[in-house]
Amino acid sequence: MGIVAENIERAESSIIERLGAAGVATVHEAQGRKGLLASHMRPIYSGAQIAGSAVTISAPPGDNWMIHVAIEQIKEGDILVLAPTSPCEDGYFGDLLATSALARGCRGLIIDAGVRDVRDLTAMKFPVWSKAVSAQGTVKETLGSVNVPVVCASAYIEAGDIIIADDDGVCVVKRAEAAVVLVAAEKRLANEDAKRKRLAAGELGLDIYEMRPKLEAKGLKYV
Amino acid sequence: MGIVAENIERAESSIIERLGAAGVATVHEAQGRKGLLASHMRPIYSGAQIAGSAVTISAPPGDNWMIHVAIEQIKEGDILVLAPTSPCEDGYFGDLLATSALARGCRGLIIDAGVRDVRDLTAMKFPVWSKAVSAQGTVKETLGSVNVPVVCASAYIEAGDIIIADDDGVCVVKRAEAAVVLVAAEKRLANEDAKRKRLAAGELGLDIYEMRPKLEAKGLKYV
Amino acid sequence: MGIVAENIERAESSIIERLGAAGVATVHEAQGRKGLLASHMRPIYSGAQIAGSAVTISAPPGDNWMIHVAIEQIKEGDILVLAPTSPCEDGYFGDLLATSALARGCRGLIIDAGVRDVRDLTAMKFPVWSKAVSAQGTVKETLGSVNVPVVCASAYIEAGDIIIADDDGVCVVKRAEAAVVLVAAEKRLANEDAKRKRLAAGELGLDIYEMRPKLEAKGLKYV
Amino acid sequence: MGIVAENIERAESSIIERLGAAGVATVHEAQGRKGLLASHMRPIYSGAQIAGSAVTISAPPGDNWMIHVAIEQIKEGDILVLAPTSPCEDGYFGDLLATSALARGCRGLIIDAGVRDVRDLTAMKFPVWSKAVSAQGTVKETLGSVNVPVVCASAYIEAGDIIIADDDGVCVVKRAEAAVVLVAAEKRLANEDAKRKRLAAGELGLDIYEMRPKLEAKGLKYV
Amino acid sequence: MGIVAENIERAESSIIERLGAAGVATVHEAQGRKGLLASHMRPIYSGAQIAGSAVTISAPPGDNWMIHVAIEQIKEGDILVLAPTSPCEDGYFGDLLATSALARGCRGLIIDAGVRDVRDLTAMKFPVWSKAVSAQGTVKETLGSVNVPVVCASAYIEAGDIIIADDDGVCVVKRAEAAVVLVAAEKRLANEDAKRKRLAAGELGLDIYEMRPKLEAKGLKYV
Amino acid sequence: MGIVAENIERAESSIIERLGAAGVATVHEAQGRKGLLASHMRPIYSGAQIAGSAVTISAPPGDNWMIHVAIEQIKEGDILVLAPTSPCEDGYFGDLLATSALARGCRGLIIDAGVRDVRDLTAMKFPVWSKAVSAQGTVKETLGSVNVPVVCASAYIEAGDIIIADDDGVCVVKRAEAAVVLVAAEKRLANEDAKRKRLAAGELGLDIYEMRPKLEAKGLKYV
Repeated sequence: MGIVAENIERAESSIIERLGAAGVATVHEAQGRKGLLASHMRPIYSGAQIAGSAVTISAPPGDNWMIHVAIEQIKEGDILVLAPTSPCEDGYFGDLLATSALARGCRGLIIDAGVRDVRDLTAMKFPVWSKAVSAQGTVKETLGSVNVPVVCASAYIEAGDIIIADDDGVCVVKRAEAAVVLVAAEKRLANEDAKRKRLAAGELGLDIYEMRPKLEAKGLKYV
Repeated sequence: MGIVAENIERAESSIIERLGAAGVATVHEAQGRKGLLASHMRPIYSGAQIAGSAVTISAPPGDNWMIHVAIEQIKEGDILVLAPTSPCEDGYFGDLLATSALARGCRGLIIDAGVRDVRDLTAMKFPVWSKAVSAQGTVKETLGSVNVPVVCASAYIEAGDIIIADDDGVCVVKRAEAAVVLVAAEKRLANEDAKRKRLAAGELGLDIYEMRPKLEAKGLKYV
Repeated sequence: MGIVAENIERAESSIIERLGAAGVATVHEAQGRKGLLASHMRPIYSGAQIAGSAVTISAPPGDNWMIHVAIEQIKEGDILVLAPTSPCEDGYFGDLLATSALARGCRGLIIDAGVRDVRDLTAMKFPVWSKAVSAQGTVKETLGSVNVPVVCASAYIEAGDIIIADDDGVCVVKRAEAAVVLVAAEKRLANEDAKRKRLAAGELGLDIYEMRPKLEAKGLKYV
Repeated sequence: MGIVAENIERAESSIIERLGAAGVATVHEAQGRKGLLASHMRPIYSGAQIAGSAVTISAPPGDNWMIHVAIEQIKEGDILVLAPTSPCEDGYFGDLLATSALARGCRGLIIDAGVRDVRDLTAMKFPVWSKAVSAQGTVKETLGSVNVPVVCASAYIEAGDIIIADDDGVCVVKRAEAAVVLVAAEKRLANEDAKRKRLAAGELGLDIYEMRPKLEAKGLKYV
Repeated sequence: MGIVAENIERAESSIIERLGAAGVATVHEAQGRKGLLASHMRPIYSGAQIAGSAVTISAPPGDNWMIHVAIEQIKEGDILVLAPTSPCEDGYFGDLLATSALARGCRGLIIDAGVRDVRDLTAMKFPVWSKAVSAQGTVKETLGSVNVPVVCASAYIEAGDIIIADDDGVCVVKRAEAAVVLVAAEKRLANEDAKRKRLAAGELGLDIYEMRPKLEAKGLKYV
Repeated sequence: MGIVAENIERAESSIIERLGAAGVATVHEAQGRKGLLASHMRPIYSGAQIAGSAVTISAPPGDNWMIHVAIEQIKEGDILVLAPTSPCEDGYFGDLLATSALARGCRGLIIDAGVRDVRDLTAMKFPVWSKAVSAQGTVKETLGSVNVPVVCASAYIEAGDIIIADDDGVCVVKRAEAAVVLVAAEKRLANEDAKRKRLAAGELGLDIYEMRPKLEAKGLKYV
């Protein structure tokens, strides 16, 4: 506790943008179904889709002091990721902090705790994925850390990892794996387009994916 | 496990449509307050109101193979109903499966588990009532069954039962009882219209329903 | 049980309106971070922001009889507050009751249980903050009480207390403290406006709030 | 609602006893991994292991009137199974009802709601599997039904079905399938004994079950 | 926040003892089914049954400073009651605090949060009813209050109220009502003894409580 | 997925034993309040206290194949740690697997999912900390990995890390930090002994820890 890592490495911005365009479900599949945050992380409004580099925050329950510290570390295109050190639903973040974060180029907040001023945040188009909406205030008494590794909503996240978030939830991609994951994700998207056309035309997945022999071998019976 | 019932019976389509128009709360009341699925089943977007015949799926946790099998069984106006064999929030269903289901005439999905690609599903107007939104992928390794009786979100559902779903949740009507329930539901709707006018005019339920003597008999005291 | 208090005192309407305009997060802070209802209380639609005097209801699980009794006690600008005597998610309230409550001047419902007909309620612009949406019907068999003190979603509420509700949740202000809380809330709003401009211009909270020396004193280290 | 089926059929008592001796995990496996109640059903004390015929109760939330009705229907060796018509944790059952049920030959209670007087019930050796322990009292105002089919903790149970319960939870076996399930269960027990000896001697499941080639075929890599 | 009320009034000790002997379920019934804490409050070991005067603590999430302050306020026979100001499961209390509380005559702890060192507490026979067991440590940075009214596990508790706790949970009796509740509770116990004998002899509740005509009037049908 | 790391490094056994003797709460404090698993991880029986090196398992939902693979990797004194790749409560582990694990020298199981045969496991003195008890069976169809880093119950765990578990829950200590943490833990234990004596003699924490001036400075008021 009490540590701020100042010069973190980030992935190339073009890779980040293209991972964001692929979206959570596709990227999660492309990297072998790992990196997904728990499904209790829900967006405060529908339709946002973002990607960026994680600026991580480890904060005590009910204490948002470290968010101020973290905002100074934000570079254009970053996403704040806050994990409380024990489960908490307090409203760590509201419209003033969002104003400050936006002024630094922040793209959104991932917080395994609560957020407030959600009407203002929605009007500002500052997207948040959180565990709860709560007006409960926090204090500024105890140190946490910034840009240390955290476990946020069951996912292990290091500063500079790529965060992708949309209506399906939130996914993290390790910085070192980003380029490889991107290739797999874009290949997947192309492949899906072809499948989508055939399915829309009425072809069955049973036939397209040649499932019938396997199902029969497993013993599926039609009655 | 490993069974697909192919020729299920369905209720008359005009009965299904009219039950759908009555909506979940009215139908649930009309059949004696039974058949409601648990309240954790929430729509992925507001405003959808559907009714159709259940094509049921019993699927292992984290395995969506049987959805492909079930889609072949869909007839125009059906609704897919998936119950996992043990609690699971994985994203069994996304936009490719929805494309395929829509091509077969499917009206929506009721799933006591997770769903993904919810932005695409919303854009396609494919309604889903689910326990969770999750991008978590599933495998295709283990058999389940299609059109067998299932317990889905605490309700017992047989293939061909009528499913009604709207913003209030999801309700099932036994196929054999559909005609009788419809009569009761439409009578209820007519009756509610009359009541609504009197209440809007400022009359009190205490008077309209003649509650005052009963409340007094039970011992209600005004202080 | 079985008591209705008829002549409750209410706060001055101008105070109530201005507390409502300040919103939940600000009022909660202004009164020393107390009075917030639990975060499971969510609005059935986004964007509503109300304030009013509490007409409280203590009701048995699955029994909505007392709501009819309470509606007679409503005066223009009141808000119904229902707490079940044991945890329950049944749909105590729907469009008929809302029609009746609206006719009496009711501004909304706070219910630590379920609500139904949410599409109709949304269309009527009758806001509800609830624990659940559920079509499950209730009976009218057992007495509860009206305008007695209740614990609703972990908050202690007396009849005539001021309820404020918006997208952030629900907060209660004691009637006797309303004037003092309002002064603090409006001072807070003015102060926030000034801060918002500086933050939007890129100044850091670390500097505006003079946090750097305190953080250093606590031992924060930059690496 | 409001129905009591008086003459229900029960399985042969010797089959019931032997299923009870096999225990929940074995019986559940023996019948193809179905019939398990949700894992929130926990025993009030450790070590009880029972089997018996289900006398089912469908009861309104917070109303235990039907338990009195059900107790009259108990025959030696029966087990009470209560499912509330909407989720409820109230204490429907305590030491007086247990005294009465025991006097009729009841072996225990399965209740997807609350129970109270658990210290007395433990002293009396009356086992209960419940969703909650709660002293919250209930009323006797509204009818339910006895010996109708219920969904209890996500399992579909008909009167006369066999209930097996132990520290692992609760399982239901359809009356018509009891004999066949028993054969499979006892075969399974015998088989497990042999396996247990080999495993205790240090042999690996990898070898006993010949898993190595299959794991290799799936692509498992040792590094 | 930041207030300690030093000279609180307590009920007569003989009344407290006898309420404790009656137990939670009986006292809860005797006072009209109110005052019960939520059922998530579970004892760390079975068999303890206590009663005492509440010394209340309102504490910030993750901060146990006020427990030290509260211990000084303990008189022989008191029970500590801690409610966090927002939901928290941290381990506020362990064997050192229990040692100190015991030395002051404390009978136990009711905490709507976490507790730790439960093996030591069990060995010391210091009973605790809590929401969670958690080793998570807390800080001593922010003030709370002692002997102010709190809402603990959904119950409103004032300093000096009587707390009763056993394996069924926790109940609060208002100090001013204690004598009246005690009379009702002891009458209830006597009455139950008579009923217990008749039920044990095989008489049915249906007959003892004369339920048959009422059930018939409500429409109960035997089939 | 599909990887087994065979030669993992472990901490010195004497360090492991002494960390185990210190227990979860002390070790957690000694390493700066980190490494605690979520409080839903509860022991199947009271009184067990273990420490050992983690053999980690990443397993698909409802699939326990990898446990067989992991058992081969166990060395005397190891502890199995299983994290499902998506939330699951199935009973992955029972008495046969425990027999096999014991034969290899395993000290217990930490599983963020379900366990079964808990009566047998208790009789065998094979301790398990789990999220659920469930008889629900699993399949052996899909690969996972062994001795890869996992997030288990919100804690990041690498193979060879030290696991400590007792009635307070489960804690992980990084292998590289074990020696330093041990020094801090044992210092803490010594320090606590001294404090315990003074507290037992009636001295107050307020005085021992010199809290009074700090409380006064923060503004605490006695009334």
